[in-house]
Amino acid sequence: MKKILITNDDGIAAPGIKALTEVMHELGEIFIIAPDSAQSGMGHAITINSTLELKHIPGFLGTENAYSCTGTPVDCVKMGIHELMKTRPDLCVSGVNHGSNSSINVIYSGTMSAAVEGGIEGIPSIGFSLCDYSWDANFENIKPYIKKIALEVLEKGLPEGVILNVNFPKTDKIKGIKICRQAKAAWEEEFDKRTNPMGKEYYWLTGKFVNHDNGEDTDEWALANDYISIVPVHFDLTAYHAIQQLNNWNL
Amino acid sequence: MKKILITNDDGIAAPGIKALTEVMHELGEIFIIAPDSAQSGMGHAITINSTLELKHIPGFLGTENAYSCTGTPVDCVKMGIHELMKTRPDLCVSGVNHGSNSSINVIYSGTMSAAVEGGIEGIPSIGFSLCDYSWDANFENIKPYIKKIALEVLEKGLPEGVILNVNFPKTDKIKGIKICRQAKAAWEEEFDKRTNPMGKEYYWLTGKFVNHDNGEDTDEWALANDYISIVPVHFDLTAYHAIQQLNNWNL
Repeated sequence: MKKILITNDDGIAAPGIKALTEVMHELGEIFIIAPDSAQSGMGHAITINSTLELKHIPGFLGTENAYSCTGTPVDCVKMGIHELMKTRPDLCVSGVNHGSNSSINVIYSGTMSAAVEGGIEGIPSIGFSLCDYSWDANFENIKPYIKKIALEVLEKGLPEGVILNVNFPKTDKIKGIKICRQAKAAWEEEFDKRTNPMGKEYYWLTGKFVNHDNGEDTDEWALANDYISIVPVHFDLTAYHAIQQLNNWNL
Repeated sequence: MKKILITNDDGIAAPGIKALTEVMHELGEIFIIAPDSAQSGMGHAITINSTLELKHIPGFLGTENAYSCTGTPVDCVKMGIHELMKTRPDLCVSGVNHGSNSSINVIYSGTMSAAVEGGIEGIPSIGFSLCDYSWDANFENIKPYIKKIALEVLEKGLPEGVILNVNFPKTDKIKGIKICRQAKAAWEEEFDKRTNPMGKEYYWLTGKFVNHDNGEDTDEWALANDYISIVPVHFDLTAYHAIQQLNNWNL
């Protein structure tokens, strides 16, 4: 029976991980280890300056193998593989994230970083996200697609060092699946400056998402046109095209 | 006069940022905004579920423009550009990190993520790291190289979307600079399980770094052979080589 590690970044109580778990029960033996609180925007953070705690939650989401962890999503994957399962899972899935992890969001996303960590461990890994931030988003109509994609990965594996970033559009009428590249997009930050009751200033990070890329081969185009986007991502950050140029520098 | 934004992940009091600042004073007008505590391993984390505070530290490291921030290294870059400087710096530098950020460490590194955030903002950005974790590491003999590399970037700029990951070997006899690719390496995790005075179990993340890549064009090779490694990194995580393969899947 296939062994499947499940995590997320919205925390173990999020509806998204419940939906993902319901699908994974159909595909194998599941192990859940997810953050005990929301960890959105944690990127690839790991806990090295403090300690980690695990809480066993037997029976949660239909498995005896459910744990919450005080750490980050990446911590969860590391602990899941090396401390809980003590064996390599056949598949690592993360999500379903409440909100988009398309284009540049892949960098900030705890959901995707957990999947990338699975990939670094050499395990076929997928991050799933739904472009709907609401807590009561409808996950029902994406479940068949989650199953189809996960089954394909279980059957065919993934190229070495490649992880799938799957985003679902917020629509009842999904047109299909597109394999895409990451769109060139960015957040234009603004800081909302406030004063607390003690008179001390503090800030909230806010911002506006801006897509600078009209390419029809991008994830943003697919999602805007009611397609599911799948971007194969990797963790070799080398900008190979720049190596020759830098070799001409006077260093 | 060139405007230079300086940050790090070891915290504003770290000797590494002091060494970096001493060099940058020779190159332009500096703005320091760095975490108020150690943020190693924070990766590309941003603070979206809580608030941020700034503390002005006039005169710190020879500038009126010095601030500590309660957030992550990436938060510092965002706040530095959008809230403090209110103008785009000509250069963003991060470090000098106490410890290596070569190969896969680039993913976990707050130092490099801060530099990458500068790159996302379109600012020529460099992360500097010294392969010596000790707090009293000797930064003196790397200062001329930091200056040389920063000057070259100020003069020539960097290709769009490219950030430099510069690592210095721990040696008194640096042989020169190599432009490299990121070595294929990983951490083999182990968790050190302990019991606290109240009888509750907790864990420390530990692990062993393993280099799986003997390529002489890698950063690990350069560092092991007393060269400074420079890896051009980018934030388009698309694994382009996998797109065709996935298009042949039955999705």
